[in-house]
Amino acid sequence: MKVLGLIVEYNPMHNGHLYHLKEAKKIVNPDFTVAVMSGNFCQRGEPAIVNKFARTLMALKNGIDIVFELPTVFALQDAGGFAFGAISILNNLKIITDLVFGSESNDIKFLKKIAEILYTQPKDFDHYFKKELKKGYSYPNARKFALQNFLKLDKDTLQKIEKSNDILGIEYIFSLLKINSKIRFHTIKRIGSNYNDPNLKSTISSATAIRNAIKNNINFSQSLPKNSFEILSKEIEEGRGPIFLEAFEPFVLPYLRKLKRNDLEKIYGFKEGLDVRFIEAANKAGDINEFLELVKAKRFTYSRIRRLIFYSIFNFNKDIIEASNEYGPQYFRILGFTKKGQELLSIIKKYVDRPLISTASNYKKVLEKILKDTERKWNVIPKLYLQQFEMDINASNIYTFFYPNKNQRKAGMDFRKPVIIE
Amino acid sequence: MKVLGLIVEYNPMHNGHLYHLKEAKKIVNPDFTVAVMSGNFCQRGEPAIVNKFARTLMALKNGIDIVFELPTVFALQDAGGFAFGAISILNNLKIITDLVFGSESNDIKFLKKIAEILYTQPKDFDHYFKKELKKGYSYPNARKFALQNFLKLDKDTLQKIEKSNDILGIEYIFSLLKINSKIRFHTIKRIGSNYNDPNLKSTISSATAIRNAIKNNINFSQSLPKNSFEILSKEIEEGRGPIFLEAFEPFVLPYLRKLKRNDLEKIYGFKEGLDVRFIEAANKAGDINEFLELVKAKRFTYSRIRRLIFYSIFNFNKDIIEASNEYGPQYFRILGFTKKGQELLSIIKKYVDRPLISTASNYKKVLEKILKDTERKWNVIPKLYLQQFEMDINASNIYTFFYPNKNQRKAGMDFRKPVIIE
Repeated sequence: MKVLGLIVEYNPMHNGHLYHLKEAKKIVNPDFTVAVMSGNFCQRGEPAIVNKFARTLMALKNGIDIVFELPTVFALQDAGGFAFGAISILNNLKIITDLVFGSESNDIKFLKKIAEILYTQPKDFDHYFKKELKKGYSYPNARKFALQNFLKLDKDTLQKIEKSNDILGIEYIFSLLKINSKIRFHTIKRIGSNYNDPNLKSTISSATAIRNAIKNNINFSQSLPKNSFEILSKEIEEGRGPIFLEAFEPFVLPYLRKLKRNDLEKIYGFKEGLDVRFIEAANKAGDINEFLELVKAKRFTYSRIRRLIFYSIFNFNKDIIEASNEYGPQYFRILGFTKKGQELLSIIKKYVDRPLISTASNYKKVLEKILKDTERKWNVIPKLYLQQFEMDINASNIYTFFYPNKNQRKAGMDFRKPVIIE
Repeated sequence: MKVLGLIVEYNPMHNGHLYHLKEAKKIVNPDFTVAVMSGNFCQRGEPAIVNKFARTLMALKNGIDIVFELPTVFALQDAGGFAFGAISILNNLKIITDLVFGSESNDIKFLKKIAEILYTQPKDFDHYFKKELKKGYSYPNARKFALQNFLKLDKDTLQKIEKSNDILGIEYIFSLLKINSKIRFHTIKRIGSNYNDPNLKSTISSATAIRNAIKNNINFSQSLPKNSFEILSKEIEEGRGPIFLEAFEPFVLPYLRKLKRNDLEKIYGFKEGLDVRFIEAANKAGDINEFLELVKAKRFTYSRIRRLIFYSIFNFNKDIIEASNEYGPQYFRILGFTKKGQELLSIIKKYVDRPLISTASNYKKVLEKILKDTERKWNVIPKLYLQQFEMDINASNIYTFFYPNKNQRKAGMDFRKPVIIE
């Protein structure tokens, strides 16, 4: 049996994603296809354009059999933390045989080589890396230049580790190495526009371009599969979207103005003076974009700054994130499945050592049951399980408050909305 | 020398306030007139329509010689706490001889009698009071019915303790008794509309009616002195107002959704199950008015619920408020003065035992100086002084973020804006 695993955000699911999914199936020829998807907040440090259930439905309608939620504590991390969370889920499901990810370079040998260097950390490489960091470069840039010096890369080859899909790909391979996974991995050359390309291009556009089109009321229907467009349109019509970072402005900026430096001490990621920069910028800025500009420096990417905003409002305490990055996701939250996916779920259920959760409101009962179970060995840290799960619930409760339609804003989406069955 | 003291909010300063000021001067015939005024947040539990400096200018242009800020920890309290803070300042200035306040009943003997009962707490009264509270009445209502039973009041007389100015008046007298003040007090019959009257009435309208007119774009110029109208208009034109509670909605509701019950444990005023009501309502409500409706119950007034919102976002910790209600305001923050007021300030300066602060950015230096001073006996609790002062600064920083004009939102108003000299 072959089971294809994908790591996605589908924010929203567009023609490029559909192309990727079809090509991946051509490569693997799987019996089932499973996706791990970000929930209501994405790795760019932004709220998703529409909620996770709507995006799950897009996935199921377009050929995914089961959608698992990547817990917020991973979805809002840098490429490394994001990859570790997603790869951990795929690996711990025990039935995933193949992973396919998009790649600008499509040079899997080279990406693997890089991941191995990062994993084994040869002394010389480490020396170069620290040197570049000292120059003030951001973490990804410092790493890039260190690799350039260590491997004596020419300009063309260097480009292969500059693009966002390749960067993520390296992290996926790194995490597979780290957890000694047997999952095979493959790449697909990304077509159409760049991940970050802000412009709408015919039928294959980046998610960024599509979100911009939605924001600016530009027609984007040609960029999405019809069903995906319909789901998105319904969400917008009923006032549950579109959600942009700007909506969070009157929440996060006054919130940051309230903070003192020691309030950020226990929050993950506020190092290198970012605590002071955040508080000063929040006190100065009149809007979220001015805030981002004020915090920005050579070594901090915009995505990192945006993610840190959410670390502070969601109380991403160091202990939770560090434990998460050591022990991985403590549950498999099922957002939706197809009839076919249901078959696979009944198989998965037999082997996993962390709970499969399809009814979120049972999350405490499920834990209690596991703690009493004497027949099966469960690999769950109770405290971390609760912390991760409650972070997801809290993130949803904050997210839904920013729905344009006031009548849709009620909290508790995770408890009310049943798993999507398509 | 006679110095008239007034306790005001001037939100905004209108013809009714001007009438009151003139009548008060007729009664007292003072050499100087001093006002204690709420800062950026008012006793109704709402942000002021325009900031404290604009409202100070209105006061100075219309016959007040010095404006002192009532610290936020008092301005946002119920009638009792508000009155205690304001009366403490007036009394501790040592030069105020007369207090005049508005009264619906204008029956000063009766108000004094009530205040004396509340101050001496006769056993029978206390018995009635507790009985009414048990029935589920709000604090002011329970007190009213207890007084009715204790004094065998008829319906007409009962009305005298039902109106907001009379309620405040009783609290002023109560605080004067409590701190054994020698300040004489007088009442002026309120004319024109009721404090809470939402409708605009010719030239004398309530501040509530004027704020509603501003919100609904109805002409209100006839209700304000010309200079007050001009100051207000300038603030609005330049985008520093008008500020309404609704602007705070996307800040306070997601903020409350983040909280757990034990987060509210240390916040002042969250008793009688209000912690649970707040969190549940925030999770359910789509807007601030729905939130207020959901929390509302017979025993909780809307003003109290609104104030509690700000207690939670400003971290009104029990220890700060309880200490404040015991030791009073720890400083006299001067918001503005006239040339004439300056003369009075030089007299005040000689006698006070708590610092006069006109340059807010010096607040720490001033404290250091006092702590080293061996010549004069200062009556300041250093920790409480800092807590109260920093609460005012923080309140301003949050307040200014909600200015309509993004370019005006920069924090630090208290440090940048010099004292108003008119």
